[in-house]
Amino acid sequence: MKTLVPLPAGFRAAGVACGLKSDPSKLDLALFAADRPSTAAGVFTTNLVCGAPVKVSRSRVPRSTARGVIINSGNANACTGTRGDDDARWMTAEVARCLDCSPEDVLVCSTGVIGRFLPREKLACGIAAVAGRLAASPESLVDAAIAIMTTDTFPKVDTRTRRVGTAEVRVSGVAKGAAMIAPNMATMLSVILTDAALDPQQADRLLRHAVERSFNSISVDGHMSTSDTVLLLASNVHAVSPAGLGAVQDLLDEIAASLAQAIIRDAEGASHFITLEVRGARAREDAMRIARAIANSPLVKTAIAGGDPNWGRIISAAGYAGVTFREEDLSLKVNGVPLYQSGAPTDFDAKSLSQGLKANRDVLIELNLTLGRESVCFWTSDLTAEYVRLNADYTT
Amino acid sequence: MKTLVPLPAGFRAAGVACGLKSDPSKLDLALFAADRPSTAAGVFTTNLVCGAPVKVSRSRVPRSTARGVIINSGNANACTGTRGDDDARWMTAEVARCLDCSPEDVLVCSTGVIGRFLPREKLACGIAAVAGRLAASPESLVDAAIAIMTTDTFPKVDTRTRRVGTAEVRVSGVAKGAAMIAPNMATMLSVILTDAALDPQQADRLLRHAVERSFNSISVDGHMSTSDTVLLLASNVHAVSPAGLGAVQDLLDEIAASLAQAIIRDAEGASHFITLEVRGARAREDAMRIARAIANSPLVKTAIAGGDPNWGRIISAAGYAGVTFREEDLSLKVNGVPLYQSGAPTDFDAKSLSQGLKANRDVLIELNLTLGRESVCFWTSDLTAEYVRLNADYTT
Repeated sequence: MKTLVPLPAGFRAAGVACGLKSDPSKLDLALFAADRPSTAAGVFTTNLVCGAPVKVSRSRVPRSTARGVIINSGNANACTGTRGDDDARWMTAEVARCLDCSPEDVLVCSTGVIGRFLPREKLACGIAAVAGRLAASPESLVDAAIAIMTTDTFPKVDTRTRRVGTAEVRVSGVAKGAAMIAPNMATMLSVILTDAALDPQQADRLLRHAVERSFNSISVDGHMSTSDTVLLLASNVHAVSPAGLGAVQDLLDEIAASLAQAIIRDAEGASHFITLEVRGARAREDAMRIARAIANSPLVKTAIAGGDPNWGRIISAAGYAGVTFREEDLSLKVNGVPLYQSGAPTDFDAKSLSQGLKANRDVLIELNLTLGRESVCFWTSDLTAEYVRLNADYTT
Repeated sequence: MKTLVPLPAGFRAAGVACGLKSDPSKLDLALFAADRPSTAAGVFTTNLVCGAPVKVSRSRVPRSTARGVIINSGNANACTGTRGDDDARWMTAEVARCLDCSPEDVLVCSTGVIGRFLPREKLACGIAAVAGRLAASPESLVDAAIAIMTTDTFPKVDTRTRRVGTAEVRVSGVAKGAAMIAPNMATMLSVILTDAALDPQQADRLLRHAVERSFNSISVDGHMSTSDTVLLLASNVHAVSPAGLGAVQDLLDEIAASLAQAIIRDAEGASHFITLEVRGARAREDAMRIARAIANSPLVKTAIAGGDPNWGRIISAAGYAGVTFREEDLSLKVNGVPLYQSGAPTDFDAKSLSQGLKANRDVLIELNLTLGRESVCFWTSDLTAEYVRLNADYTT
């Protein structure tokens, strides 16, 4: 992940500590600010139980006059009723005072413990402090990435630049992990910034395309958070021709995939990073269903953890995904070795394949169908005793 | 579980060892025989990847002339192509020779390793042996229950008798666990016998009702086997009036629920038996979706394993179940203690509740909605490091 270049033109960021976490020296408040009114789009959790910030931010995008995104960790402001709604709106008003804009032009995310009210005094000080530290340097973006972390073990940040027409378009993104932990849950959050010019509808369309192939194509444990949010801000510095939009989409897709994969690489207690390719489905949604069934099967995940190329668990998970096929339509490779070909297991060197699985963190599972031309790529982690320990014994 | 009375009138059973398991002294072949042509119904896995015995048995029910059910453990005869289909039919033909009936009147199940061909010589000897040991004693039913075990730690068998009209109707059942293990997978199997008179359509209807409220209302890890099968045989000894059918249904429901709960009590590596009651849904299917989402969430299961009354994980799992509700419609109790009331967390003594969770194997989770009058009861286990160890390290 490269963080050696400044933010996309028109943006500044910062991260500070304001005492929301049990260790008061830890960064816990991030601000992303646009120097001028910018385009904003968002994709949010579909969980019906969702945090107050999700409700507030969702109601404010897509828009063309966004000025900032404020994110705190340490407290998710979820399951906090109308007081939580008021607190989320209050946070955006505090930021608006610093940025001299309307509260509606500020978006908000919160992650951390649920069911507790936000401490307004700490946040008021923190917002003033973080607004005072805004900068366009790569270090400021890393600070912001650190400030949104909960159980993540490393900050997720990436910046890429590409020539689009005559301009150097830049995209920067930060993210935090999807794993959920003590005492209630954390969240997947990401903010992506670009200096390309996008109108709100373009930004919305490009973001949804990128999210579908990144954050919606990963799974740690299949449990959907109440606060998942991905936001895209475009400062409209570089005009993009209709022909150049594809290049911006590619750049956005790359950053989103890079951040999503970083989340899986940092999944709680995981010992393997699994890339799952499902090809030859009738529809993309069919391929996704099969990928999700395999990725969320505890039996597949534990087999990989144990280094066993257990084709039976993978094939049978595909069989209950809700997609119609015949066994003859199905073939499977693990790390390039065919295990199951057109409906029947093959002879393969299980010992050597198992040794490879045990020696390497990365695993490639390829499931090939003969039904159509649609395919998906999906990323997931394995299931280890350490995951259970982290998620069972966190209170003791 | 009572096994002190003989089988329902008209049935005999037996279990023998024929060398299919790595320990050749372990029982691995069970036969259930009807003295006269009997009614048979079946419910089977909906997995598209299914074993040969499932295909054969599914094609033979419902029927009015069934004479036997042959079940082997140690080899699932799944993913074995047309040779597997031939082997499954061959097993029923061997049994038919012993029982002097048509092969079509014999049903077959297999459980154990997948992807390996059945050893016909061992099975031919075993089928002759098990047919020679058929008896109506409670011990013979226990032998049959032991012979279908794979990773189960105890046999699941239950018999109940009730007066229906002027007759003493008896229902006996055996089952084996749903947990899936080395090197590929096991299966949930159950055979239920009754001496009540049921025509094939009645048997099918009564069995589906019972299965929906028992075997379809349990989950260990959400991974559906290729071979799950529940069979009902009725020897038609005791005529049942239309008014008496309800009593037979109740008896069947009780036996099926008792066996299904025994499977969860024996779930691999589990430290808690969780009863999940979802009430007040618009439709039964809605309540089931919510129950399944909660039961299959690794985060809920690990929280229970750790003794944490983590209402956030339970509520958020309900939120992504695909059922529409508002947070205000939701209330939650764990072991009788309200944790979340009409959309907001309550004040509760977390320490005392946690101590209770750690001290007792049984947990009751009650989720109350205010949407309608439909409810379901669902049973599941927690997720422990021991489950992961069993399912990851089985090859070493």
